Amino acid sequence: MLQGLMQARPLLVSAITDYAEQAHGKREITSRLVDEPDWRYDYRGLAQRSRKLANALLDLGICAGDRVSSLAWNTHRHMELFFGVTGSGAVLHTANPRLHADQIIYTINHAGSRILFFDSSFTKLVESIRPRLLTVEHFFSLSPSGAAATYEDFISPASSEFVWPIFDENSGAILCYTSGTTGSPKGVLYSHRSIVLHAMGAGLPAAFGLTAFDVVMPCSSLYHATAWGLPFVAAIAGSKFVLPADRLDPESLHELIEREGVTFTGGVPTIWTAYLEWLDRLEKSPAGLRRVVIGGSAVPVSMAQSFLRQHNVEVLQLWGMTETCPLGVVATPTPQLASRGETEMWETIWTRQGRLQFGIELKLVDEAGCCVAHDGHTPGALMVRGPWVVERYFGSAEPAVDSEGWFNTGDVATLDEDGFMRITDRAKDVIKSGGEWISSIDLENAAAGAPGVKVAAVVGLAHPRWDERPLLVVEPHEGAVISITVVMDHLRDKIVRWWLPDSIIIAEVPLTATGKIDKKQLRIQYQGYYDDAKT
Amino acid sequence: MLQGLMQARPLLVSAITDYAEQAHGKREITSRLVDEPDWRYDYRGLAQRSRKLANALLDLGICAGDRVSSLAWNTHRHMELFFGVTGSGAVLHTANPRLHADQIIYTINHAGSRILFFDSSFTKLVESIRPRLLTVEHFFSLSPSGAAATYEDFISPASSEFVWPIFDENSGAILCYTSGTTGSPKGVLYSHRSIVLHAMGAGLPAAFGLTAFDVVMPCSSLYHATAWGLPFVAAIAGSKFVLPADRLDPESLHELIEREGVTFTGGVPTIWTAYLEWLDRLEKSPAGLRRVVIGGSAVPVSMAQSFLRQHNVEVLQLWGMTETCPLGVVATPTPQLASRGETEMWETIWTRQGRLQFGIELKLVDEAGCCVAHDGHTPGALMVRGPWVVERYFGSAEPAVDSEGWFNTGDVATLDEDGFMRITDRAKDVIKSGGEWISSIDLENAAAGAPGVKVAAVVGLAHPRWDERPLLVVEPHEGAVISITVVMDHLRDKIVRWWLPDSIIIAEVPLTATGKIDKKQLRIQYQGYYDDAKT
Repeated sequence: MLQGLMQARPLLVSAITDYAEQAHGKREITSRLVDEPDWRYDYRGLAQRSRKLANALLDLGICAGDRVSSLAWNTHRHMELFFGVTGSGAVLHTANPRLHADQIIYTINHAGSRILFFDSSFTKLVESIRPRLLTVEHFFSLSPSGAAATYEDFISPASSEFVWPIFDENSGAILCYTSGTTGSPKGVLYSHRSIVLHAMGAGLPAAFGLTAFDVVMPCSSLYHATAWGLPFVAAIAGSKFVLPADRLDPESLHELIEREGVTFTGGVPTIWTAYLEWLDRLEKSPAGLRRVVIGGSAVPVSMAQSFLRQHNVEVLQLWGMTETCPLGVVATPTPQLASRGETEMWETIWTRQGRLQFGIELKLVDEAGCCVAHDGHTPGALMVRGPWVVERYFGSAEPAVDSEGWFNTGDVATLDEDGFMRITDRAKDVIKSGGEWISSIDLENAAAGAPGVKVAAVVGLAHPRWDERPLLVVEPHEGAVISITVVMDHLRDKIVRWWLPDSIIIAEVPLTATGKIDKKQLRIQYQGYYDDAKT
Repeated sequence: MLQGLMQARPLLVSAITDYAEQAHGKREITSRLVDEPDWRYDYRGLAQRSRKLANALLDLGICAGDRVSSLAWNTHRHMELFFGVTGSGAVLHTANPRLHADQIIYTINHAGSRILFFDSSFTKLVESIRPRLLTVEHFFSLSPSGAAATYEDFISPASSEFVWPIFDENSGAILCYTSGTTGSPKGVLYSHRSIVLHAMGAGLPAAFGLTAFDVVMPCSSLYHATAWGLPFVAAIAGSKFVLPADRLDPESLHELIEREGVTFTGGVPTIWTAYLEWLDRLEKSPAGLRRVVIGGSAVPVSMAQSFLRQHNVEVLQLWGMTETCPLGVVATPTPQLASRGETEMWETIWTRQGRLQFGIELKLVDEAGCCVAHDGHTPGALMVRGPWVVERYFGSAEPAVDSEGWFNTGDVATLDEDGFMRITDRAKDVIKSGGEWISSIDLENAAAGAPGVKVAAVVGLAHPRWDERPLLVVEPHEGAVISITVVMDHLRDKIVRWWLPDSIIIAEVPLTATGKIDKKQLRIQYQGYYDDAKT
């Protein structure tokens, strides 16, 4: 090869901090706090206090590559950890306070953190787990505290002058652990390069497309894959930033949206279910809100409809994982869809997780690992690749990707000719019948509409002839009576014949602790059910 | 440091080609051609033919790092060279047909190109320079040709199946030479990394902000710093792309704008002067056009006004150089400016070259190399740094940057608190008076408004006490009489006292071949003028 002759400037998080300060230093940042009045400053203030933090860390002997953990809500101090810790060359581990205490302990020990910064909501938790945190040398309360050392006391004597060090862009910056539904949480160590590229990609109009005129409020947690990168995307765009702390109830959110003029927000569906109900009940509407990005789990069409039709707010569905920083796909309009008319465009968009984004490659493979058609209906295991996709989990010697660099998401999906992706199942739930795949999610959605059905659950059970066949378990609404014949007739209109479940059982559907259908339990309960089946 | 654990996927131009094909393969590309009917296909077609080209190059024995030159207009075939040559690992040298034949020969020899692709407009030129092209082994006409081998014949037997090779993202991709107003043209070798990062940065809403709904027509040449990266930005965004070939006259442009629904175009001011005059004369207006990005030289305020007030088209001024890929700054609105009202916002924007963009650092230094204030009025030598700024010229052993990596643009500028940059002078034209700088451009602009003045030219002349002092030469309109006292009084209102020229001379102002004021000539003509000055 012939080397290009452009500058080898590394892509570092500190470049975002510097840029935000210089290009739009006076753009506001406002933050709710746990037990304090609201905080208000700007990107210049964020940069200055991040530099104070970096100096304080240096004085404490925190070196490049050292880990620092946070147990914190969406506040300006958490933002300062994002920029100050990473800028100094250390690694921020954003511990997830929603995990079980044992798992929180596991992740902080596994990260090997030397400092733990925590919001006062977690003071008791920290006291109780403290004896089991093996590597933490310093504890700082992010809130004012009578007893503990505080973040403000820590940074206050430090100078706000600090020249960010220049180092390899592949250095670790932020460490996020997966929720770990099976086994221990796994750490994904984002590099500076991956964070900057992800922020640039997510900032493009095909994804979030934030502008300097936007007012952004992240309602996904900063500890969940960096709140989808929004702190970085907003800092680059110069959007005003609004941090809701721990108050995600509808009234608190609405107050912030109205008072601060929020135009763009994002979070998991449950927040918005509650918010929409509240708006409905109080006959209110968020005046300036224009777009809500929703991810974490599938967006109900009715939610997207309510936002658009009742409140003139566009819903952008997002699919991603901790392992993808998390941007995978985002559902934004295209001229191809728009040419079918506004109504059909939105209805198509709402049933897809999103469209291909520059920087993240997607492919679908069958069980033999061969690519399947991108025709909008052939499902395949969803594989992803790109500069902001995990290569290897923290502390693991094994790569998390195949020999060509593809990471298996564990999802089954389709891709259509317009470049839109739709998740059809989790890989472990898909039903493999006679070499073809049946989507348990699609089958459940079809059955959920049958008369009297409250919950519909579908699992694949071993079958002597077809490998697996679907079993449908339906739980009736209180007092309702379900007819198996009626359910079967209902399904016949909606799905192809060979997808029809071989049996329908009327019973209570077991749920997990987080309210999802417990398919593991169902599989155990009905194990062997089709063993003697003939066809 | 602790290494991050994300994938090491390189940033390659071929990733743009693949993405455009997969994400919006059916989005249209249409091209005028020199002696052929218009061409029409889509991003899928572009990708397929780029792969055919890559196969053909491979068959011809073109290896990674080999150079391939083009002498071509903005056509789809030139676009295919952009994607096919670079994707294969070779380097595309986009020769500038506007240079003197000697300089064209110099650049192709200096690049060491093995192939030359040329539009039929240049057949005679190529015939005449052919004996002096020392390294070119193959010549292909991009147009159908009775005599020469053609591009279509070259790629037609090749397969459209080709897996783009994966290689170091710092490899060279496109080689552009500066126009070389002084000395020989200098080659800037863009790396794959710099092109991809530049395209992502230029795609952000703060810069071009192209969307899938945009229809983009580049009227800056593909051989001028890759037409400001528009082929790459548009391919990422999925914008429809319209190529005007060599027909940049108002009527041809207007026809394309109307027929293809162009929403976004860009080019140097001279094109738009002619276009606006034509629109005025024919009382026409471009219906769908929304934004015009203008760079290459300063945008007259009256041009920006006409576009906005008469045609509802926003002008985005751009400043950049071949050495910066070329994106430096772009003048897009911000809420800070908008808060002063629409009129004042635009008037402020129109007098600035643009605002800071993420990915490119700017600083201003005085003669001692110390940073000057970013207060909107202190001028300094404009230095730039970043991953899409030149490090070293092609074939040079010396770095083009200082020890901290800053490239001196040769411009003098101010930066204000809103992050907007204004070019006040070329460094060689700035007048250094008593340790302070006087902007020759500002002085000329002030003098140009005085009664009877047709052209005003200012140069700094050596002065025994002040190092340099300004001399103003004014040329009267035909038949007009200029009073030196009146001109001096006119200036007194507009500039600080110490900027006032020590002498005003009424004379013809010498112009260069391209119609600019010939300051070199003026300096020679008036050399020693202030040698005997006392104060």
